[in-house]
Amino acid sequence: MSAAAGAHPLPSVDPRTGEATRTDLLPTGTAEVAAHCARATTATEELERIGRAGRAAVLRAMADDLEAAREEVVATADRETALGRPRLDGELNRTAYQLRFFAEVVEDGAYLEAVVDHPGDTPMGPRPDLRRMLVPTGPVAVFGASNFPLAFSVPGGDTAAALAAGCAVVVKAHGSHPLTSALCGRILAAAAARAGAPEGTISVVFGREAGTALVTDPAITAVSFTGGHAGATALRGLIAQRPDPIPFFGELGSVNPLVVTAAGAAERAAEIGRGLVGSFTLGGGQFCTKPGLVLVPAGADGDRLVESAAAALAEVPAPALLNAGIAESYAAGVAALGGRHLITATAEPGAGFEVRPTAVLVDADDLDAALLEELFGPIAVLVRYAPEQLTGLLDRLPGSLVATVHGGAADDPERDRAVAALRGRTGRLLFDGYPTGVAVAWAQQHGGPWPATDTQHTSVGATAIRRFLHPIAWQNAPEASLPPELRDGPSPVPRRVDGIAVPASP
Amino acid sequence: MSAAAGAHPLPSVDPRTGEATRTDLLPTGTAEVAAHCARATTATEELERIGRAGRAAVLRAMADDLEAAREEVVATADRETALGRPRLDGELNRTAYQLRFFAEVVEDGAYLEAVVDHPGDTPMGPRPDLRRMLVPTGPVAVFGASNFPLAFSVPGGDTAAALAAGCAVVVKAHGSHPLTSALCGRILAAAAARAGAPEGTISVVFGREAGTALVTDPAITAVSFTGGHAGATALRGLIAQRPDPIPFFGELGSVNPLVVTAAGAAERAAEIGRGLVGSFTLGGGQFCTKPGLVLVPAGADGDRLVESAAAALAEVPAPALLNAGIAESYAAGVAALGGRHLITATAEPGAGFEVRPTAVLVDADDLDAALLEELFGPIAVLVRYAPEQLTGLLDRLPGSLVATVHGGAADDPERDRAVAALRGRTGRLLFDGYPTGVAVAWAQQHGGPWPATDTQHTSVGATAIRRFLHPIAWQNAPEASLPPELRDGPSPVPRRVDGIAVPASP
Repeated sequence: MSAAAGAHPLPSVDPRTGEATRTDLLPTGTAEVAAHCARATTATEELERIGRAGRAAVLRAMADDLEAAREEVVATADRETALGRPRLDGELNRTAYQLRFFAEVVEDGAYLEAVVDHPGDTPMGPRPDLRRMLVPTGPVAVFGASNFPLAFSVPGGDTAAALAAGCAVVVKAHGSHPLTSALCGRILAAAAARAGAPEGTISVVFGREAGTALVTDPAITAVSFTGGHAGATALRGLIAQRPDPIPFFGELGSVNPLVVTAAGAAERAAEIGRGLVGSFTLGGGQFCTKPGLVLVPAGADGDRLVESAAAALAEVPAPALLNAGIAESYAAGVAALGGRHLITATAEPGAGFEVRPTAVLVDADDLDAALLEELFGPIAVLVRYAPEQLTGLLDRLPGSLVATVHGGAADDPERDRAVAALRGRTGRLLFDGYPTGVAVAWAQQHGGPWPATDTQHTSVGATAIRRFLHPIAWQNAPEASLPPELRDGPSPVPRRVDGIAVPASP
Repeated sequence: MSAAAGAHPLPSVDPRTGEATRTDLLPTGTAEVAAHCARATTATEELERIGRAGRAAVLRAMADDLEAAREEVVATADRETALGRPRLDGELNRTAYQLRFFAEVVEDGAYLEAVVDHPGDTPMGPRPDLRRMLVPTGPVAVFGASNFPLAFSVPGGDTAAALAAGCAVVVKAHGSHPLTSALCGRILAAAAARAGAPEGTISVVFGREAGTALVTDPAITAVSFTGGHAGATALRGLIAQRPDPIPFFGELGSVNPLVVTAAGAAERAAEIGRGLVGSFTLGGGQFCTKPGLVLVPAGADGDRLVESAAAALAEVPAPALLNAGIAESYAAGVAALGGRHLITATAEPGAGFEVRPTAVLVDADDLDAALLEELFGPIAVLVRYAPEQLTGLLDRLPGSLVATVHGGAADDPERDRAVAALRGRTGRLLFDGYPTGVAVAWAQQHGGPWPATDTQHTSVGATAIRRFLHPIAWQNAPEASLPPELRDGPSPVPRRVDGIAVPASP
C-alpha cells in the first residue's frame, strides 16, 4: 500500500497519560485514496446487485463480528479515548444494534418510497406510466467522530445507513483513535467478505491529506461529518469547488438549551440540578447533545436548583478528555470566562488530558454572544432569568440538535411558550429529561437547523438512510428495465399505486 | 407601498414586437421586502393553525379563482411571453390541477412521515417515547421562471408545494412577465383571503434588488429557483454568507440527452426524427426538459432519422423567444457554432425576438465541451456515433433532469447499456418518448444530479412538498404538546407505530 510521500507512522495517544505510542499505520497517500474510491464504485454496483436481503445479511455479519471481537475492540478504544470500559461496552452494544436495525429498515423496504402511477387521464391531459423510487447515490465518505470511536466512527451510524442504502463507504479515521479505526475496519471488511459483499464495500483511510483527497474524489457522492466548524468549513470549501458539489451532511456544534420553568423549578429543583450535572459531565461532557446552556428561574427555587447542581458538580471526578486539542480548547474556554461566577468540581485534574468540570453562573443581562457558543467538555452555562426575560432569551438561542424543557406536572403556560419558541430552533424537543443519549429508533431525529449543514435529514434513526439515496422516475419503461420493487404484480415493499398506499405483499 | 429609491416603473415587453410598455409596477424596495417577509412569518404560524384541511381549501380556492380569471390571465401572459394562447391555456389547466393535486397530498397526510415509537426495551437499553414528523420550515422565497409564466411562477408548483406544506410564500416575479405576475399575485391573495388564509400567505416582489433582499432576509427559510447558472451562482453566494445558510433548490441548465439505439433507428427512424424536432422546438425550445443532445447511430438508419428531422425542422415557424436576453444568447450560441453542419428551419425570423430553429449535426469525434452545455431555445445537437463510441459518449454526459432512450421493440442490449450508463446521470429515465411535458403525479421526479443544486428532491410531483419541510422529534412529550397527528388513538394520517405501518383511521 502506498502511503503519503515521506509520511511518518501515526501516533496513538493515551489521554490518561498524554503519552504517544508509535503505530504501524501510515497516513494514506492520495493515490491509495483514489484506489479505495474506485473499488467503492465497483462495490456499490455489486451491493445493489446482491439486493436488500444481501445487504441486510452484510450488516448483521458486521454486528456479529464486532460483538465477537468485543474484548479487543473495547480495550483498544479505551486506551485511545479514556472513555472507560462500561461506556465503550455500551457503545459497542449500540453500534451492533444500529447495524441490525438498519438491516430491518432495508428489509422493510418502505425507505425506497416506491410509487407507481399507471397511465391515465388528468385535467392537464394524459399521464404516462411513471414509477419512482429512491436509489443509492454512490460511494459515501464518512468522517469518524472524536467522541464516539464506535457508534459515530468506522462501524457507526453513518456507515450502517450508507451500506443499508447500497452505498460503499470510505471512512476517514479520526486522528484520536487510529488503532480502534483500523481494527474496526478489518473486522467490518472481513465480515462483509464473509457475507458475500464485494471488496471495497468498506475501507478506512488515515490522515488529513487523505480526508482532502476523499471529499474531492469524483467517485464520492456524499460526505457525512461529525465535528467542529473549522474542519467542516474547510471540507465544505473543497466540496464547493467540485464540478459537481455533493451533499455535505455535517453535525457541528450545538449548545442544546435546557429550560427550567418556574413550575419545574418549584417542583423538582434538587432533582433537576443533579440531573443536569450528570448530563453535561457524562463522557467528559463530550456529547454533541450535551446541555450547554441552562435557563434557570431567578429566585428561591432557582437558587435551590443551582445549589443542588453545585453540590453534584463538586463530586464529579476530573475526566481525561479525548485529545490534547480538546483539552487545550477547554482550558482556554474556561480561562476566557475570566471574572464570571464559576462553580467547579473539587477533584484536581491529574495526568494526561484531565480537566476540571465547571459550571458558569450568569444573570440573563450578562449573557453575551460568547456564552451562546458550544464549549466542548464538562461545562455548562447556567443563566438566571426573571419571568419577563424568558421570551427574549429564547429568541436569542442558536439552532441546536436538541432542546429540553423541564416544566410543571400540571398545565404550565411558561412551558408551552418555551416549546413554541424552541420548536423552530431544534431537531428534537425533549420534555422533563436530559438530552444526552440518543436512542436508535424509527422516530429519532438527530439534526436540526443550522449549524446542522443539512437541515432536512437526520444522522440517527431509521430515516438517516435517506441521506444516501436520491429519487429516479422511470417513464414508460419496459418491465425488464424496472427495478423489481416497481414492477406490476406482488411487490416486496410497501408502495403507493395510483395514489393509494399498498402494503408489501406477504 | 415604498419602492426602491429613485426607482422607475417596470416595463412589460411584447416579444413579438420587442416593444416595451410602461407599467404602473415599481421595483419593490428593500424595506417593503422585509415587511412582506415579516407578514409571511406570521402567516406561516396561522397556516399551521388552520390545519391541513384549511390549507387544502386555500389551494382549491386559488385554483378556482385562477380558472375564473382565465381569459385575462391567458391574454396577459400571451402578450408578455408570446407563448400563444393554446399553450398558455394548457398551462393554466396544469397550474390549477397542480394546486388541487397538492390539496389532495395535504389531505392524504402521508407526506408528514409521522412515526410513533412508544417506550420500550432495546439491546442498547430502554427507549423513551419518541414521535417524529415533518413540520413547515417557515417562509419560502420562490423565484419565478421565465419560461412558465404560470406553472413555475407566481401560481406555480413551488408556490403550491410550499403553501401545502404550511409555508407562506414570497415570490420574486420574473422580469419577463411582470403584469402576469402581479395579476396572478392579486388573484391568489384574494382567493387565500376568501378561503380564510391570513394576510401575507402569498405576496409578490419585483426587481433584482428585491430578489437580493429576499434571499438574505432572516425570515426566509428556503429558496426555490428555476433559471440560469449566473443568477443561481449569485444567489447561492448571498445565501452562503447568511449566518444560517438555508437550502437553495435550484433547477439550472440541463442538456437532456436522447439516445437512439441502432435497433430504435432501424425500426422508427422517420418517426423519431419528426418527434424529436417537435420536442426540441416546442414552446420555442424553452423547456428545461428540451432534448438538447441527440445520439444517433451512424449509417443508413441514422441518416434516415436525420433526414426526417431536417424535413420536419424546415416546416417549423420561427418562434419569438421570451425576452431580448434569451434571443441574444441564442443568436450568439448559434453563431459560435461557426463552421458546424447546421440544419435550419426555412422560416425567416421576423420582428421582435423571433429566431430560426436550428439543429447541429456532428460526428462523435467532434463533440467538444461547448456542445455539452445547454443552449436555451429551439436548437439541438445531433451526434452521429459508431457502435463502439456509445459507452464513451455516455460517460461524458453531464447530469440532466431527464434522459431518454429510443430502443428496439424486442430485447435491445444497447438500450440496456445506455440505461445503465444514464441512471446515475438523471432524475427521470424516459423510454421511447419525448421529454418535454412533465406530468404532475405522485411518481414524478423533476431534478437529478448536479446542475440541480439539491440532488435529493424534486420540484414537480407530490414529493416536491418535502423541500419545504423538516423533521422534528418529540421525546416524552405530554399529549397536549404533541401535534394531533402524533397523539395516541385514531390518527388522521398514515403513520408507523412501533415499527409497523398503520393506515389513517377512517
